[in-house]
Amino acid sequence: MAVNLPPPDPAQLIPVAGVELGVAMAGIKKPNRKDLLVMRLAPGAVVAGVFTQNRFCAAPVTLAKKHLKNPIRGLVVNTGNANAGTGREGLVRALAVCSSLSKIVNCKTDQILPFSTGVIMEQLPAEKLIAALPGLKNASWLEAAEAIMTTDTVPKAVSRKVRLSGGEAVVTGIAKGSGMIRPGMATLLAFVATDAKLSGAVLKKIVRETADESFNCVTVDGDTSTNDSFILISSGQGVEVKKESDRKKIAATVLEVSRLLAQALVRDGEGATKFVTVRIERGRSAAECRKVAYAIAHSPLVKTAFFASDPNLGRILAAIGYAGIADLDVAKVDLFMDEVAVAKGGARHPSYREELGAKAMQKPEFTVRAVLNRGSAAATVWTCDFSYDYVKINAAYRT
Amino acid sequence: MAVNLPPPDPAQLIPVAGVELGVAMAGIKKPNRKDLLVMRLAPGAVVAGVFTQNRFCAAPVTLAKKHLKNPIRGLVVNTGNANAGTGREGLVRALAVCSSLSKIVNCKTDQILPFSTGVIMEQLPAEKLIAALPGLKNASWLEAAEAIMTTDTVPKAVSRKVRLSGGEAVVTGIAKGSGMIRPGMATLLAFVATDAKLSGAVLKKIVRETADESFNCVTVDGDTSTNDSFILISSGQGVEVKKESDRKKIAATVLEVSRLLAQALVRDGEGATKFVTVRIERGRSAAECRKVAYAIAHSPLVKTAFFASDPNLGRILAAIGYAGIADLDVAKVDLFMDEVAVAKGGARHPSYREELGAKAMQKPEFTVRAVLNRGSAAATVWTCDFSYDYVKINAAYRT
Repeated sequence: MAVNLPPPDPAQLIPVAGVELGVAMAGIKKPNRKDLLVMRLAPGAVVAGVFTQNRFCAAPVTLAKKHLKNPIRGLVVNTGNANAGTGREGLVRALAVCSSLSKIVNCKTDQILPFSTGVIMEQLPAEKLIAALPGLKNASWLEAAEAIMTTDTVPKAVSRKVRLSGGEAVVTGIAKGSGMIRPGMATLLAFVATDAKLSGAVLKKIVRETADESFNCVTVDGDTSTNDSFILISSGQGVEVKKESDRKKIAATVLEVSRLLAQALVRDGEGATKFVTVRIERGRSAAECRKVAYAIAHSPLVKTAFFASDPNLGRILAAIGYAGIADLDVAKVDLFMDEVAVAKGGARHPSYREELGAKAMQKPEFTVRAVLNRGSAAATVWTCDFSYDYVKINAAYRT
Repeated sequence: MAVNLPPPDPAQLIPVAGVELGVAMAGIKKPNRKDLLVMRLAPGAVVAGVFTQNRFCAAPVTLAKKHLKNPIRGLVVNTGNANAGTGREGLVRALAVCSSLSKIVNCKTDQILPFSTGVIMEQLPAEKLIAALPGLKNASWLEAAEAIMTTDTVPKAVSRKVRLSGGEAVVTGIAKGSGMIRPGMATLLAFVATDAKLSGAVLKKIVRETADESFNCVTVDGDTSTNDSFILISSGQGVEVKKESDRKKIAATVLEVSRLLAQALVRDGEGATKFVTVRIERGRSAAECRKVAYAIAHSPLVKTAFFASDPNLGRILAAIGYAGIADLDVAKVDLFMDEVAVAKGGARHPSYREELGAKAMQKPEFTVRAVLNRGSAAATVWTCDFSYDYVKINAAYRT
């Protein structure tokens, strides 16, 4: 029931030279399901990443952060088990999987990045992953996107080409996740690769800037996962990026791909029937605008009103009021639902009629815009509504 | 569908000398429904209160805070309209209601405290309230509790007697609210009265201490209302409290009554099927324990797992991890579900079996206890689960 999110068109997904994909059915949680993805990187590839800030970060996250110091040759991703809340034994098992893949790729254990997603506080069945590694089948980016799905209903994959001064570059990415989505530094799992040759320093800068403008701007349920990881790969097999103008172009393309992936996570948010952009304008700082945007985007009352297309928009004022801005003058706050003026100066707009609000909310996509009138900063957050199906999916996730 | 919350037994509700109750059907939102409550206080009564920290605080809250400086002679409470997000006009209308009641009570306008609860961002139909005031009918505490219900399914009223050195004192209170419950200073509407004679200074101290240990420890959906008010009344018609030992006794009784009312709000939380105590122990401060408790109590993933009795308890570890304690050592965290040891040292307890977790969660009441092992502070929060009915109630609230 994803909101305006058709499955990716395989013809539109462009391979990235120097990034080889392989998938397998390891039977981690269910039989006959692609649940294991390996990305092999050509020698010379550069990788950067940002990770969850959840203190209960998963064992693979701990290892991936450590291994990122080395030249990375392979990534291994499993679904069905998060390997989080698993203590020292979790680290041992994740390392065993890295070690096993390193022998196939012919590199050291610490040149492999491990990733896991699924149930928390159950030990990783490492032996199943290790048994499946030799039987990996070459895969497309679409198959890779499918192999990392959990409660996702649609695989998420996006490709773009960008013309740089030295020639054309490719940026292709995949992502997964539809619940426990409120990224702390990045979102559940997202992998974006380019053939363009970028330095490690530039890649690190781009991955942080991109995360802040894409994956760090979405929320489904306010729950920050233990496994969030956003990885950016430069295989270095394509044109070299030296000029500042090229750096900007490739960064913009990475951002475009990442934003589409981040929005896709929300469009396929658990039980989502609406895709909602929450835009806060004229705040004192981007940070305070984000605070207000998240207060709205996390309010169960606001989200159930979205679901019902019920223009019970006082709930949005209430959320703005408890967002934690101690000196907010509510008598200056204006509120809009798409182009409909809902509130002016902290009270109902004289021209507002509920039919107008209801009409705006009945669309599968709309924008809530609050203008604080106390500064010049702004922020945008993308979220979805809260439906019966969210409860259904999460009340029955494992059974 | 309230959890273990039978309607109050009228025989157990003790009147408070010096507090006269009256109710009426003003037809604010629906006809033939008690929606107006007036409490008349004898001369000499002392009143203290704590109010919402929501910046969009309602017009009546603004007035009540101001009027509290004066000797209060009457309280007027309406349901069906919150008079929040209503700008200056909201203040004018709330004042008109106070003025009208002051003529009946024979006092000044600013000796009346107004309270409202209901839909936000709609102007208060003050003329309906004013028209209904002369027709008030004498009422019991149970009828008063009924008159302030909105989505509540059960009226909330509690009485206790306490023996002081000078004789017996009565403490009786009522409260309402089942959604938009995550008190900032107090909860939606709660009124507790005693006949014991207390000074204004003592009453103020008791109201703050009580709020922190009762209404400030509950959450249904994490939404802090625009109208939260907790009012404590000393009618002064009973025994005078002078000794410190008596002060402690009356404070303890006020706390007992307030806690039962606060817990009643959660038991009757919108869509609630479970009543859950979240207890965090051995933290560095009560504040950090509360942070962790609220992270658990607000997580939609944890709350839907409660609803399903699904021991998917890794979700609780994830919530502890993102609660915002930057230096939390998760390898020290233990987790219990009632007496069942779920996690030890941040990972699954060796003896834990899911049947045990499921069995604990199937009960209508259970305790989640996390031990941080980094200090000696503790905190408790009471919450409920997240069910289909929460979505149903809030998707259809006004229609």
